[in-house]
Amino acid sequence: MREKRIAESRSVLSDVMLPSQANPAGNVHGGEIMKMMDTCTSVAAMRHAKSNVVTARVDELVFYNPIFVGQLVICEAELVFVGRTSMEVKATVKVEDMTCEDSAKIALTAFFTFVALDCNQKPCEVPRLKLETPEEELAFKKGEKRYLYHKRKREDI
Amino acid sequence: MREKRIAESRSVLSDVMLPSQANPAGNVHGGEIMKMMDTCTSVAAMRHAKSNVVTARVDELVFYNPIFVGQLVICEAELVFVGRTSMEVKATVKVEDMTCEDSAKIALTAFFTFVALDCNQKPCEVPRLKLETPEEELAFKKGEKRYLYHKRKREDI
Amino acid sequence: MREKRIAESRSVLSDVMLPSQANPAGNVHGGEIMKMMDTCTSVAAMRHAKSNVVTARVDELVFYNPIFVGQLVICEAELVFVGRTSMEVKATVKVEDMTCEDSAKIALTAFFTFVALDCNQKPCEVPRLKLETPEEELAFKKGEKRYLYHKRKREDI
Amino acid sequence: MREKRIAESRSVLSDVMLPSQANPAGNVHGGEIMKMMDTCTSVAAMRHAKSNVVTARVDELVFYNPIFVGQLVICEAELVFVGRTSMEVKATVKVEDMTCEDSAKIALTAFFTFVALDCNQKPCEVPRLKLETPEEELAFKKGEKRYLYHKRKREDI
Amino acid sequence: MREKRIAESRSVLSDVMLPSQANPAGNVHGGEIMKMMDTCTSVAAMRHAKSNVVTARVDELVFYNPIFVGQLVICEAELVFVGRTSMEVKATVKVEDMTCEDSAKIALTAFFTFVALDCNQKPCEVPRLKLETPEEELAFKKGEKRYLYHKRKREDI
Amino acid sequence: MREKRIAESRSVLSDVMLPSQANPAGNVHGGEIMKMMDTCTSVAAMRHAKSNVVTARVDELVFYNPIFVGQLVICEAELVFVGRTSMEVKATVKVEDMTCEDSAKIALTAFFTFVALDCNQKPCEVPRLKLETPEEELAFKKGEKRYLYHKRKREDI
Repeated sequence: MREKRIAESRSVLSDVMLPSQANPAGNVHGGEIMKMMDTCTSVAAMRHAKSNVVTARVDELVFYNPIFVGQLVICEAELVFVGRTSMEVKATVKVEDMTCEDSAKIALTAFFTFVALDCNQKPCEVPRLKLETPEEELAFKKGEKRYLYHKRKREDI
Repeated sequence: MREKRIAESRSVLSDVMLPSQANPAGNVHGGEIMKMMDTCTSVAAMRHAKSNVVTARVDELVFYNPIFVGQLVICEAELVFVGRTSMEVKATVKVEDMTCEDSAKIALTAFFTFVALDCNQKPCEVPRLKLETPEEELAFKKGEKRYLYHKRKREDI
Repeated sequence: MREKRIAESRSVLSDVMLPSQANPAGNVHGGEIMKMMDTCTSVAAMRHAKSNVVTARVDELVFYNPIFVGQLVICEAELVFVGRTSMEVKATVKVEDMTCEDSAKIALTAFFTFVALDCNQKPCEVPRLKLETPEEELAFKKGEKRYLYHKRKREDI
Repeated sequence: MREKRIAESRSVLSDVMLPSQANPAGNVHGGEIMKMMDTCTSVAAMRHAKSNVVTARVDELVFYNPIFVGQLVICEAELVFVGRTSMEVKATVKVEDMTCEDSAKIALTAFFTFVALDCNQKPCEVPRLKLETPEEELAFKKGEKRYLYHKRKREDI
Repeated sequence: MREKRIAESRSVLSDVMLPSQANPAGNVHGGEIMKMMDTCTSVAAMRHAKSNVVTARVDELVFYNPIFVGQLVICEAELVFVGRTSMEVKATVKVEDMTCEDSAKIALTAFFTFVALDCNQKPCEVPRLKLETPEEELAFKKGEKRYLYHKRKREDI
Repeated sequence: MREKRIAESRSVLSDVMLPSQANPAGNVHGGEIMKMMDTCTSVAAMRHAKSNVVTARVDELVFYNPIFVGQLVICEAELVFVGRTSMEVKATVKVEDMTCEDSAKIALTAFFTFVALDCNQKPCEVPRLKLETPEEELAFKKGEKRYLYHKRKREDI
């Protein structure tokens, strides 16, 4: 199985938030952003695996800042860790006011785990990750820890 | 601050999945279900706090079974743990085929954490939880553990 | 054809109303609620018939109270009357403000009539109704009256 | 109060049905069409009353033919009867296949009743109807009968 | 190939603008109106060609007046010019306030060009246009000029 | 008025196309893409003007390739020409199949013209464009030609 760099599958989705995406309080509905994170991380996973993927779990999804209608939302996704058939992808959501000089602020982060599927909808192997920086290596180790923790938890049941 | 039982704020949202909620593979988009879970758990949190609430984090969101267009999705939410101003709510999503005799199957579970907001959008105290069964007490302890773990992690940064 | 109790197919759909469901006046669009009633009553009809169903008519749909964005809408459906292949289902829509202690208020009621369809899309027989209370018997008689009235009207044309 | 002809407020809404409006069976969701009928009849009522209006009830909504994705749906609305502050509007929904030579077929009909509202959201008087044909007079009498029947029923409660 | 009059395929779509169609500034999103114009002009093209059609280009789309939530939008489409397999359709969008006596105002105009497709998705011939008035003849000539200009431009590349 | 480089306001929106965005033929609705182009070009215009903007016109919108549900759509926008209060922005839409090794293909291009608005909704001056390459200079000249052509046409009426 060939190796692939993280940069090869890094993905960005972005959109301006519309009134139709608001919650009753008038801010952007948290669920709309989770939907965007799910799509963006799945793009990264599909680009890495070059196959269909299915979401298996979401961990440590944290809301740092509210998002308002009219803001530009930029969701970035990059692979952190890969198992044999699974991939953990980190999502970072930033917001920007187009009419201000301020730089974009982080609004949410999360880890999404996907399983690669072959054309019979069975899990299939994914390329290894070729880590290029100490940051990527550190993030990989933390991802491996989460992977092993959840694996043990599943086996305990 | 008065105590409230878990049963007082238990909440259910349910809906039949439409083609407009499908992902490109034709199943229901995971993000649509996350949106429904966010709304349902916020109903439980608002019923408990009798105030507005804001989503702070999501943990251990696990997909057990895919959801198909045409299925009835039933999302149940109940409080697990409360801090001074925060509430952890467990979401359980079940699916049912209305034309089959089979009982509903679990499709997803997750823990959503909310913070109660007063009318100035500042965090405000929420009622204590009056635990009534050993199961509720065990779940509360596990919730407290997650709460303390994430608190320590925030303080480390 | 076996008999089935009304309780076996009783159904509930519920959701929090979003800004995307508002009419230009800012209240919830009546058509959004009719759509929810149609879906909820079809769930009850499908659970009773254990087959696909198609909406044939709607009668006496009455709006008692407006519905506002942010309210929890709870739609309840239960069978009232069955013909050979048709089922009349009563829908009752209630609204609740999650941050108030008030109980839910009735917003709309209506009667939806469905026809059960077999896998060739032809009308098929549905189970009889096993009535259990005097209220169910009274409602059944009123439903039968509506059924016969509309049948005669169709035959007149 | 001045009189107005039915033709002055006659209204038409039309749209091509999209996959996002389908029900799980793949046809157009009945609720989508009810929403369109509600909007179209409210346009006729607003044009007659020259004020805001609120839906009070729907009667005898009958589905004659299913509607498919890709069809052109044409909803026509015209006033049938007016009380002091209420207006009954008939909706007729037709469908057309743009690539066939066949003429449009009737898919649904219904009667929607609206109440005119002044700027304080209180019911306000509406113009009388100036009937111009024997058909309009006959329809008006039938509308008056429905009006009196529902009025008596409300008073009985 | 038989000739067809412009009046035979003239088309109208109309709808009341909802809050879910607003842009962040609160007006109706320009993209929503472009979508309605694309649909309406495709109805005219399908009625003329009696076949499926695909949008090839849009020219001179001009916004004259903003559109507000709650307004009735009326989109009219009529053929202007036909090539062998292509049709140019003019869209005119008007807005009306139902509670005012003012007549409808023009909000946008544009020219949409479609290509007719046979059942193998290949371009197919469309009926000639039978021009009936000097205005239709003048518009046809201007359409022909646009057609030849774009054809030359494509050939230059 | 200060000058700004084209690169400072260059903008990208991207999203995976969902079944809810399909037209009846099952491809992505052209109007959905036009909506995305309108939003993306308005982001570039707002970033340049640091003010609100309103769409004035769309020119030479050309469809090169159909877009399918499940594809990643990437819309890029960059300023081409600025008048005193108006900005012309070029939109280029590309599509990518995430599971293929092929590079992204161009699906549509168009020119959107915006007017900058101050807080009283009056047109306001925008920064000049600092052109950096021969390509930018050539595109600017073509944009100026379109600008003068449309200006003359307006004055003729």
